[in-house]
Amino acid sequence: MDDVTFAVLGTGGIGRRTLDVARHRDGLTPVAACDRNGVAVDHSGLDVAELLDATEGNIASGPEADGDTPATPESDYASDGGATAVEGGDAAADGVKQAGEGAGVVASAQGEPTETPIDDVIAESDAVDAVLLALPNLEHDFIPRVAERFADAGYEGVLVDVLKRSRVIGMLDDRAEALESSGITFVCGAGATPGFLTGAAVLAAQSFVEVESVEIWWGVGLKSGYEDNRGTVREDIAHLDGYDIERAREMSEDEIEELVAEHGGQLEFHDMEHADDVLLERAGVCDAEDVSVGGVLDVRSDEKPTTTTVRVTGTTFDGERATNTFELDDATSMAANVNGPALGYLKAAVLRNRAGDYGVYGPAEIMPSF
Amino acid sequence: MDDVTFAVLGTGGIGRRTLDVARHRDGLTPVAACDRNGVAVDHSGLDVAELLDATEGNIASGPEADGDTPATPESDYASDGGATAVEGGDAAADGVKQAGEGAGVVASAQGEPTETPIDDVIAESDAVDAVLLALPNLEHDFIPRVAERFADAGYEGVLVDVLKRSRVIGMLDDRAEALESSGITFVCGAGATPGFLTGAAVLAAQSFVEVESVEIWWGVGLKSGYEDNRGTVREDIAHLDGYDIERAREMSEDEIEELVAEHGGQLEFHDMEHADDVLLERAGVCDAEDVSVGGVLDVRSDEKPTTTTVRVTGTTFDGERATNTFELDDATSMAANVNGPALGYLKAAVLRNRAGDYGVYGPAEIMPSF
Repeated sequence: MDDVTFAVLGTGGIGRRTLDVARHRDGLTPVAACDRNGVAVDHSGLDVAELLDATEGNIASGPEADGDTPATPESDYASDGGATAVEGGDAAADGVKQAGEGAGVVASAQGEPTETPIDDVIAESDAVDAVLLALPNLEHDFIPRVAERFADAGYEGVLVDVLKRSRVIGMLDDRAEALESSGITFVCGAGATPGFLTGAAVLAAQSFVEVESVEIWWGVGLKSGYEDNRGTVREDIAHLDGYDIERAREMSEDEIEELVAEHGGQLEFHDMEHADDVLLERAGVCDAEDVSVGGVLDVRSDEKPTTTTVRVTGTTFDGERATNTFELDDATSMAANVNGPALGYLKAAVLRNRAGDYGVYGPAEIMPSF
Repeated sequence: MDDVTFAVLGTGGIGRRTLDVARHRDGLTPVAACDRNGVAVDHSGLDVAELLDATEGNIASGPEADGDTPATPESDYASDGGATAVEGGDAAADGVKQAGEGAGVVASAQGEPTETPIDDVIAESDAVDAVLLALPNLEHDFIPRVAERFADAGYEGVLVDVLKRSRVIGMLDDRAEALESSGITFVCGAGATPGFLTGAAVLAAQSFVEVESVEIWWGVGLKSGYEDNRGTVREDIAHLDGYDIERAREMSEDEIEELVAEHGGQLEFHDMEHADDVLLERAGVCDAEDVSVGGVLDVRSDEKPTTTTVRVTGTTFDGERATNTFELDDATSMAANVNGPALGYLKAAVLRNRAGDYGVYGPAEIMPSF
């Protein structure tokens, strides 16, 4: 495959780390990055080291504006907070951190201040093969609306996000026609889960002609990241027995601390509403209802409280019932498990785009699978 | 993706099971199958049930003609023996089994006898998206030469094999230009290993920016399949300490039985010469020398003597050293682990072919990977 040029919308945790990780491979050239404050464009390739150094400190802070985000696996904790809002509204305004002069990207010598960062990237998008939407979870339809703007501008290329909400995928599906006619290939949920672990499920399913269950179980240790992810932890609480989104929203910080203390710092989740189910069904692996997602979050340790595991149970063509297993080492951080896969799916989507396959895809559909 | 039509060259173990497995999915239509005796073609789709019933008994028998096949993981034991030779010479002629009248495919109502089965399939190949080369290991360059014949005929489409020898991949590379100019996308080694497990290694590597080792370890229980795979077992013996290809070739059946008995029916292999290494290096996952392949073959039990496992050790972008693991349930047969992946890679290769990506690929290159 030829060189792939890509842009990153949002230079918070995921955006920054994606730029960082991409440096480890040839053939992936970042040519644009933006946040709510500015945009940096260089079609011969951004100076990532300078950009990262100058904007160090652009990490998540404070609760996210959108309190009813459903799911919480690994990639949530790697997702962006307020500092990286791009035209996203006021909610995130007070979370901005910066190291140099000017806020966010503008702190970089490559950054230019702008009121319209997304439009500025769209204006350059003729020379961009793929765009990673590493935007904060401000509103459920924010990413779909951004995608629509690319379609309105006639963008021909790839859009990738690392979100995981089932409902966002439906919203993207609603826009599939507009994306298709523009020539956009959109891969939604291409982070850790959905993403990496969804792909693992597709792989593990290859022994089977009939899949009976997919169990995704994640572990996240969040001691040092706890302060930056309090909003996400609050959202997670909505998944505990006896809690829902409204109740979690209304809890005071003290009430949350009390709850966390009651659980000894470890929150365990079962049967989470999660897009892996929809995405595996789309790919023909199994029915959505046969997919379960859960995990354990430990806010008092950076060690993972449980091993992230994918177990796929099915029946072989010769009638045997069996379970194949994929396990991530506890030493792999959530960030490592988001950004490598995101770039992998991005490259795979570019191939699909060049093949003329436009529309909305999940990561499971990008894997070799029969 | 639209419907994919495919042909199978060779209707021994792998060819038959691929036809069988493909029945479990929509969108994969077998339109041609051949063996050394005949060819069956139906562009609206073969009647697989009739074909399989009529040709039951077309399984491997006797030692294969090509005694210096290097490797022996799962897919070897699923590979074809003499009965399925297609224009392959005399060596396999005495191994033919058949259930109906006429030998091989000709026993089916859909089969027509022919002296030129491969040419007959090539003649129909305008309407064939992909061809699975499920041919016996008669000579190292047999598959490359068959590929060349498709290229000479101007075939535009996919060729997939399930072989695993490093040297064959080199021979295909030598023909890459001819394949490319014809419009052929060739995926070599798309069975279990290389194939399924190579893909698992690519997946498991996604946490890492640097991969330090890939360990592929397989288990095969071959009690009921022993008689049909004596030739392959003989080849495996060449991998044992103190043995080589020549010595293994010259051993009498009694000597082999004695050796097997000395090992209690279990032969254990280490550092096997195996194409996974070359294929993972091609895909940029790691250096070939960092890949090791080994396993245990038990000829006295159908239970796997050890669990088939892929372990990938690497370093994350944030500096952690870790090992991700993929494990196949012992209840999954080698056949299940060859045919599902082969069809998955076949479909993925069709996409690549439609994108205009021609030439020679390994399964590792077909996976999403950054």
